[in-house]
Amino acid sequence: MIKTDILIIGAGPTGLFTVFEAGLLKLKCHLIDALPQPGGQCSEIYPKKPIFDIPAYPEILAGDLTDKLMEQIKQFEPGFTLGERADTIEKQEDGNFIVTTNKGTKHQAPVVAIAGGLGSFEPRKPPIPNIANFEDKGVEYMIREPELYRNKDVVIAGGGDSALDWSIFLTDVAKSVTLIHRRNEFRGHLDSVDQVQKLKNEGKINLITPAEVKGVVGENHIEGVVVAQKDKEEFTLACDHFIPLFGLSPKLGPIADWGLEIEKNAIKVNNALDYQTNIPGIYAIGDVNTYPGKLKLILCGFHEATLMCQSAFQRIFPDKKYVMKYTTVGGVTGFDGTKKEAPKAVVKKIE
Amino acid sequence: MIKTDILIIGAGPTGLFTVFEAGLLKLKCHLIDALPQPGGQCSEIYPKKPIFDIPAYPEILAGDLTDKLMEQIKQFEPGFTLGERADTIEKQEDGNFIVTTNKGTKHQAPVVAIAGGLGSFEPRKPPIPNIANFEDKGVEYMIREPELYRNKDVVIAGGGDSALDWSIFLTDVAKSVTLIHRRNEFRGHLDSVDQVQKLKNEGKINLITPAEVKGVVGENHIEGVVVAQKDKEEFTLACDHFIPLFGLSPKLGPIADWGLEIEKNAIKVNNALDYQTNIPGIYAIGDVNTYPGKLKLILCGFHEATLMCQSAFQRIFPDKKYVMKYTTVGGVTGFDGTKKEAPKAVVKKIE
Ligand SMILES: Cc1cc2nc3c(=O)[nH]c(=O)nc-3n(C[C@H](O)[C@H](O)[C@H](O)COP(=O)(O)OP(=O)(O)OC[C@H]3O[C@@H](n4cnc5c(N)ncnc54)[C@H](O)[C@@H]3O)c2cc1C
Ligand SMILES: Cc1cc2nc3c(=O)[nH]c(=O)nc-3n(C[C@H](O)[C@H](O)[C@H](O)COP(=O)(O)OP(=O)(O)OC[C@H]3O[C@@H](n4cnc5c(N)ncnc54)[C@H](O)[C@@H]3O)c2cc1C
Repeated sequence: MIKTDILIIGAGPTGLFTVFEAGLLKLKCHLIDALPQPGGQCSEIYPKKPIFDIPAYPEILAGDLTDKLMEQIKQFEPGFTLGERADTIEKQEDGNFIVTTNKGTKHQAPVVAIAGGLGSFEPRKPPIPNIANFEDKGVEYMIREPELYRNKDVVIAGGGDSALDWSIFLTDVAKSVTLIHRRNEFRGHLDSVDQVQKLKNEGKINLITPAEVKGVVGENHIEGVVVAQKDKEEFTLACDHFIPLFGLSPKLGPIADWGLEIEKNAIKVNNALDYQTNIPGIYAIGDVNTYPGKLKLILCGFHEATLMCQSAFQRIFPDKKYVMKYTTVGGVTGFDGTKKEAPKAVVKKIE
Repeated sequence: MIKTDILIIGAGPTGLFTVFEAGLLKLKCHLIDALPQPGGQCSEIYPKKPIFDIPAYPEILAGDLTDKLMEQIKQFEPGFTLGERADTIEKQEDGNFIVTTNKGTKHQAPVVAIAGGLGSFEPRKPPIPNIANFEDKGVEYMIREPELYRNKDVVIAGGGDSALDWSIFLTDVAKSVTLIHRRNEFRGHLDSVDQVQKLKNEGKINLITPAEVKGVVGENHIEGVVVAQKDKEEFTLACDHFIPLFGLSPKLGPIADWGLEIEKNAIKVNNALDYQTNIPGIYAIGDVNTYPGKLKLILCGFHEATLMCQSAFQRIFPDKKYVMKYTTVGGVTGFDGTKKEAPKAVVKKIE
């Protein structure tokens, strides 16, 4: 059982910044995300695109925003359960919540902050009848741990940035990389497309287009994929891993059944106070919530997270009075023992 | 008469960011500030200190935050009335507001956003009986335009960062710089103290300590200051300018008489919707407002400004429906003709 002060569901920008604000209040956080990496939409959908409306960043790549947030919260040592979906919640008699993932990992906390964005990112799966039998037996819809592919024969399917970028990345890791796409044209960053072309020319990526994977074969583990290529006969290509990267799409999913008031696929909260839901102790912040005038913007999630943490603090310590201190004045003391501080002014004689 | 869409009172971080959010909605802004420079508390009180809780900035100097905001809003060409205090507001029959400053400058807009922070920064004046007669006649409490001092004899009084930093700066501009302080010890950044020591050693700053300016003399314009130095007789020092820099302190001031609901020296707003005050068309955002759970933090002002602009848009264009577009997707089109845009994905054959 993982125990923490604030259990955050969703490691997008809102969830990440919550760790910082909670940390200032000396509250520890743990984050659950269905994705294998933090950053939510920013890291999954548009990591290499610039955002122009993050305050005081005339321009920042979504991936860099995630990196900066991770750097900012590092002092507060957040825990992560990645690649798992929060599926069920129960309230215990002692007031704590228990949240269990689809892989059975259990988390306990007095406060739950749902920062689930547009929902849990779920892969679009190819229509291959027996594919479910091979999930986690050589078929993966997202790459959690690149080392899994060291010295393996890997087949990737897809025609977008994920398929391009992982093909490029894995040429340095895998024994062989085959990229299969149903068109000759790929859609992505020019750099990525050009680099795949170069790796193909060098024989480092085996490109099969236009083609589709029609089947997977194997006993207990995948042993190959059945490929239908235009103007050719279907053939079986031996491989250790098949990674269909057809994009992930967010689904509110099981959270919709937690007894929370839902409106327009989002969770209603009390925006006049603390972004708490109809269930005391469960808050909803960032894209996942709704209230009159709600805007699904990153900067709004930051504010919501900040106000929410104050309320969570009062819930956890009903008798303590928290006196806010500016970070500039009080510094930031991490759980890792580090302290960030403004250089002190000197009082010095001039003679 | 200066006309604009949103008249912003206060050019602190909140007021500045409002320009950006308004610009995305194609609304023009003009800002009034009592200070001679933008940035509010950040530029006046702690420009060289680091802030640690600006989201995605593990650390940023308050002065740099101001610079980044100025860079971000440049595309939207805000107007500025600096060094003047907004004193009165009137509502016209056509629904527009007219705001007049202490110097008589008039501004007209359908929407007023008060982003006045802790109030208008007003100088602490030294207790010199006739000093008021010389204000703007050689006595200035803040430096608006350094060029005013070119080839002049300047006396600065004070013992903090402003006195130190302006003394340093003006050595390159003025004919002579005299720094007077009632102690031998100065309080400020080590760098600044050390540099004043160096300039004093080089004869570029004339230092008089421990001493006080007791009087100002002159006909229509200041001609000298009367200095009382310890263990010496009072003497008159000829000068063209006397700049007492004893700090500025914020006062809510005339805004308190505008008929707005005030609570704890702040303006009550509807935080459940759009941060509007009890007077329709007048909003209050950032440190200047109050509501249940209010935190006087920079990141909160950013959120409040953003929601406020949506409401202002509906007020100005009741019949238009605004459909929000992410900056990443729609880009940012400035009033200056520039456009920031994400590089487009390519669709390209790999063969
Ligand atoms: C193409 C594009 C461009 C954009 N441009 C901008 C822009 O310019 N400016 C701007 O402000 N915003 C922009 N946005 C929106 C911005 O990305 C979102 O507002 C932001 O990501 C919301 O952050 P969040 O943390 O609330 O949610 P998300 O980023 O959506 O993160 C939520 C996370 O929660 C996880 N999750 C949800 N439910 C579960 C569960 N049950 N179990 C486990 N994990 C779960 C999801 O997997 C996800 O990783 C853009 C979005 C897109 C798609
Ligand atoms: C030492 C110190 C450290 C701080 N550290 C942090 C920190 O770490 N994190 C954080 O988030 N916040 C911090 N703050 C607070 C932060 O600076 C404020 O929250 C922020 O400046 C508020 O921005 P604002 O734009 O709302 O108001 P302000 O910055 O106060 O700006 C308001 C402006 O309005 C002007 N004004 C007001 N009335 C009038 C009028 N009638 N006419 C003309 N002009 C007028 C004022 O002159 C002023 O320039 C700190 C503050 C101080 C003093």
